[in-house]
Amino acid sequence: MAELTMETLVSLCKQRGFVFQSSEIYGGLSSAWDYGPLGVELKNRIQRFWWREMTQLHDNIVGLDAAILMHPRVWEASGHVENFTDPLVDCKKCKQRFREDMLPEESRGSRRCPECGGELTDTRKFNLMFRTHIGPVEGDASVIYLRPETAQGIYVNYRNCMQTSRLKIPFGIAQVGKAFRNEIVTKNFIFRTCEFEQMEMQYFVKPGEDEGWFEKWRGKRMDYYKKLGIRGHKLRWHRHGPDELAHYAKDAYDIEYEFPMGWRELEGVHNRSDYDLSRHSEFSGKDLSYLDEETKERYLPFIIETSAGLTRSVLAVLCDAYEEEVLPGGEARSVLHFHPLVAPITVGVFPLVKKDGLAEIARKIEGELREDFTTFYDQSGSIGRRYRRQDEVGTPYCVTVDYESKENGTVTLRDRDSMEQRRVRAEDLAAVIKKSIREYARV
Amino acid sequence: MAELTMETLVSLCKQRGFVFQSSEIYGGLSSAWDYGPLGVELKNRIQRFWWREMTQLHDNIVGLDAAILMHPRVWEASGHVENFTDPLVDCKKCKQRFREDMLPEESRGSRRCPECGGELTDTRKFNLMFRTHIGPVEGDASVIYLRPETAQGIYVNYRNCMQTSRLKIPFGIAQVGKAFRNEIVTKNFIFRTCEFEQMEMQYFVKPGEDEGWFEKWRGKRMDYYKKLGIRGHKLRWHRHGPDELAHYAKDAYDIEYEFPMGWRELEGVHNRSDYDLSRHSEFSGKDLSYLDEETKERYLPFIIETSAGLTRSVLAVLCDAYEEEVLPGGEARSVLHFHPLVAPITVGVFPLVKKDGLAEIARKIEGELREDFTTFYDQSGSIGRRYRRQDEVGTPYCVTVDYESKENGTVTLRDRDSMEQRRVRAEDLAAVIKKSIREYARV
Repeated sequence: MAELTMETLVSLCKQRGFVFQSSEIYGGLSSAWDYGPLGVELKNRIQRFWWREMTQLHDNIVGLDAAILMHPRVWEASGHVENFTDPLVDCKKCKQRFREDMLPEESRGSRRCPECGGELTDTRKFNLMFRTHIGPVEGDASVIYLRPETAQGIYVNYRNCMQTSRLKIPFGIAQVGKAFRNEIVTKNFIFRTCEFEQMEMQYFVKPGEDEGWFEKWRGKRMDYYKKLGIRGHKLRWHRHGPDELAHYAKDAYDIEYEFPMGWRELEGVHNRSDYDLSRHSEFSGKDLSYLDEETKERYLPFIIETSAGLTRSVLAVLCDAYEEEVLPGGEARSVLHFHPLVAPITVGVFPLVKKDGLAEIARKIEGELREDFTTFYDQSGSIGRRYRRQDEVGTPYCVTVDYESKENGTVTLRDRDSMEQRRVRAEDLAAVIKKSIREYARV
Repeated sequence: MAELTMETLVSLCKQRGFVFQSSEIYGGLSSAWDYGPLGVELKNRIQRFWWREMTQLHDNIVGLDAAILMHPRVWEASGHVENFTDPLVDCKKCKQRFREDMLPEESRGSRRCPECGGELTDTRKFNLMFRTHIGPVEGDASVIYLRPETAQGIYVNYRNCMQTSRLKIPFGIAQVGKAFRNEIVTKNFIFRTCEFEQMEMQYFVKPGEDEGWFEKWRGKRMDYYKKLGIRGHKLRWHRHGPDELAHYAKDAYDIEYEFPMGWRELEGVHNRSDYDLSRHSEFSGKDLSYLDEETKERYLPFIIETSAGLTRSVLAVLCDAYEEEVLPGGEARSVLHFHPLVAPITVGVFPLVKKDGLAEIARKIEGELREDFTTFYDQSGSIGRRYRRQDEVGTPYCVTVDYESKENGTVTLRDRDSMEQRRVRAEDLAAVIKKSIREYARV
């Protein structure tokens, strides 16, 4: 099987309409990417999969969608204004800029540029938050930041959510949204970008019960990726050592996926203690404690955070689904083994030939399936070629209308992974496909 | 029936968990709002309703999700750098700032402040785009804008979308996303905010066929709001007069809704001619023409745009659903008549009493319904009070488990709007509710 490189993936994503470079006709923006017709469906479905798992299937987790623009004091309380910085150095000769902690060992010692040998400046700290001004005139308008993470939106709304939804501890608040980081190095395609999307859930628990909940959520979150169809041997845990642990974290694990460039973080599961709520209490002057109505105890909840990257999940799902397969006869096929729930197109519908009324029957079937599924009608090229096209974009089911269909109302239903075909009555298609989706398990 | 005022709505939205002021614990940000547990479900469902209508049910419309950050040349080509401005004046005495075109007639003539009578400055033009810098150091980094509209993301990706999806004219590209405008006056709750969401579809047609498509899309878009459950008498057309028409528009109509503050735009349907593609051709130097493979004609497509506000739709749906009803017996109830497809909670499940095993049966039924619907389990207070709570948040169906349920496995299913109850076998609930959703029509 051919090794998937990032270059292959970038080009495949463009050709098949998953991901385009932002503003490509203007030479492109290296730090942002646009999701094309198939990419947006894939991303939306992964988001919906996560949202359903976290909110619909848990009766004590509610959703939230906070704005990207927040009061600037939020970022003082969170520590981002002070601490969310990269250490940068400039070369005085060639003017290139580097992250000091990414310099080769040698340059760090000699303070010489790794590119031209010129002298490097002292290290300066640069804040990674994008700044802008609200109110039309800079200067007399307020500085405002694009949020560098979605979590703070949950903390500042925790009391409102809890009261309006009558929640009792333990409970969670889930949110999906964009965040922005003005990072100097952006590479590895959509793995790290200045504009990205997070899927975060903050779980509020009683101090003393946090370690138990931390373990439960670690288990649930690893299971989630397997449910999503990611192969288990491509997933592993990485525990933060004392030198990696953020100042607010009591304990932290990352779920890592083996991307083409190596093992990288897909999600963080963190025990954030009561750091966040105590900081926001202090900076806002508001009492954010929780009153247990049964025991009459009052305390500041601890928070267990599960923080996943949505755009990063799209990349992991794409990498994991990709296969260049050599079939028994020696023929090759390129296929994306998406979970049927996240595949951008669920059903391809083809007439064997356009003539003899087959196209009309196929169109009618497609129209009916369209009520329940995302469909794609294709009547051009050989049937084999049409199957290959759908394999390439990960469509799990293909329906073909042939001459037998005219006689007895049955069609063939082809499975992407096994390539097996079976005859199904056209009116049973929706039910058969729904059942197959429910029972899907990656082989 | 009590008149709905904006003040009532803001307070109702907060109390019931639909919309909270952004960063409320820090005194709030007047120009941004956060969607609470019920608000995010309502917003997501309206978005999904639109997306399904536009993409899933049209085989020639594909989706897209372009980044908020785009190449700055995009906004030169679109005309926003030059023309997207508000005329502002300052009072030299009290320092207040006003939009010149919003000043009372008298102040415009006298150039005197409407607040304190002080002298007003000359009018200056201020660009409404939020500016920030990409690359960590202002000055040597590039100026970049937060997009003030989502449409341009579609135009710059039109060729990539067309080629990868093998689209032939006429075809459409649909997108939902955030946009930002640094407006000085923000009021009317979520109707106009600095950060907002748009749902736009750009339909690419052959010049000469644009007027026919314009009329077709006008019809479809008005029908859409009625399908969404908005009452017809609250909707009307407003055609842009010659003085209102944007420089790129050949013809333009707004769909207006009668909000508590009057008739306001909900969606614009615009014939944008070939303005956008010709500008991007010119500024990017790329050939954006379309080749008709059958006739061998090459031309720049005309664009019919349907541009709806998502956050504005949420407001319209809330206003339209709201009713303070006086029941035949004289009792009052507050109800939100949401379309069942967009209601934040689809089914409430209650045991008549907690004891005698009824709670366990209700929990089991709720767990089963949870696979297909958003559910809410409630066992506190009288049944009447629990129904009222669900009426208040617009839950279309409530299931009650009573003593008869233990005997024969049936439950009562109550309809929010008619308040009628019927007995249904517990195992038929999912199917009965799905059928009722499909057949829903607002009375």
